[in-house]
Amino acid sequence: MDVLKAIEERRSIREYTGKVPSEETIRSIIEAGRLAPSAGNRQPCRFVVVWDRDKILKIAKASMKFLNKAGVVIVATANPKLDPKWYPVDTGIAVEHMVLAAQSLGLGTCWVGAFDEEEIKKILEIPKEVTVVAILGIGYPKQVPSSTSRKKLSELFFKDRWNNPYS
Amino acid sequence: MDVLKAIEERRSIREYTGKVPSEETIRSIIEAGRLAPSAGNRQPCRFVVVWDRDKILKIAKASMKFLNKAGVVIVATANPKLDPKWYPVDTGIAVEHMVLAAQSLGLGTCWVGAFDEEEIKKILEIPKEVTVVAILGIGYPKQVPSSTSRKKLSELFFKDRWNNPYS
Repeated sequence: MDVLKAIEERRSIREYTGKVPSEETIRSIIEAGRLAPSAGNRQPCRFVVVWDRDKILKIAKASMKFLNKAGVVIVATANPKLDPKWYPVDTGIAVEHMVLAAQSLGLGTCWVGAFDEEEIKKILEIPKEVTVVAILGIGYPKQVPSSTSRKKLSELFFKDRWNNPYS
Repeated sequence: MDVLKAIEERRSIREYTGKVPSEETIRSIIEAGRLAPSAGNRQPCRFVVVWDRDKILKIAKASMKFLNKAGVVIVATANPKLDPKWYPVDTGIAVEHMVLAAQSLGLGTCWVGAFDEEEIKKILEIPKEVTVVAILGIGYPKQVPSSTSRKKLSELFFKDRWNNPYS
């Protein structure tokens, strides 16, 4: 699927059919995450790809309930010591690569930022010094919601100087 | 261009031909940034799209010299008050949307994280309370470098629990 089309059609998908994606599909998605650029190529992120149903249910309990129907859940972590300044930006880049790859393969995703970090770490045996940055639910969309409103281009983008609306 | 192909072929491009992109091309790229998801749809980022050659040269001086040949420079900012926790992740997502959109349109980009923030703010009249998160150079690639090495999938991705290499 074309990049611009994937970006336009992407929605945060919170309702999944329950169909489990193929190994191959998930592999293409995580490869897209692997290829993400990072500041100084320091690659501070590590990802736990959760297929285990029991663990997915536990993660949903420690986070957002809708994840219990996800086909796969990816828990994005980083060791802040590897890059104290840039690890959140780098996580944003890598996870969004996976979001757009999933979209291009017919899957829906949803970024989740609300979770009980200690509980997630316990479920997945994540060490103390590692930060759980975000969780990504992946699954086949049950329905595709209409687009969420965005501020206008002229509100978000300026031309050549601050507060000069891009038009 | 296909999403997976764009992700595979993307490189950080630091040498540009000097050809200036069309208004329309840049508009497609920034529209891709506008459509990026953000935590709680709070949209904490604002972007200054710099076409002015004189300002591009000043930005290059306050940052990385190679930006002086960029066709357009986008300065990504955020107001941390709008979302103190998520604004760096949200910036990562939005800028990478623009990176992949640019790639799909034949342009090269490079994330720049090294800059004199006070100087950049002065050049673009960015207010005190706003943080400059990153700068993106955009231009037609003079040459496409070979890929930067990445850790193996099994080092970056685990299956179902920490330190269980994805294979």
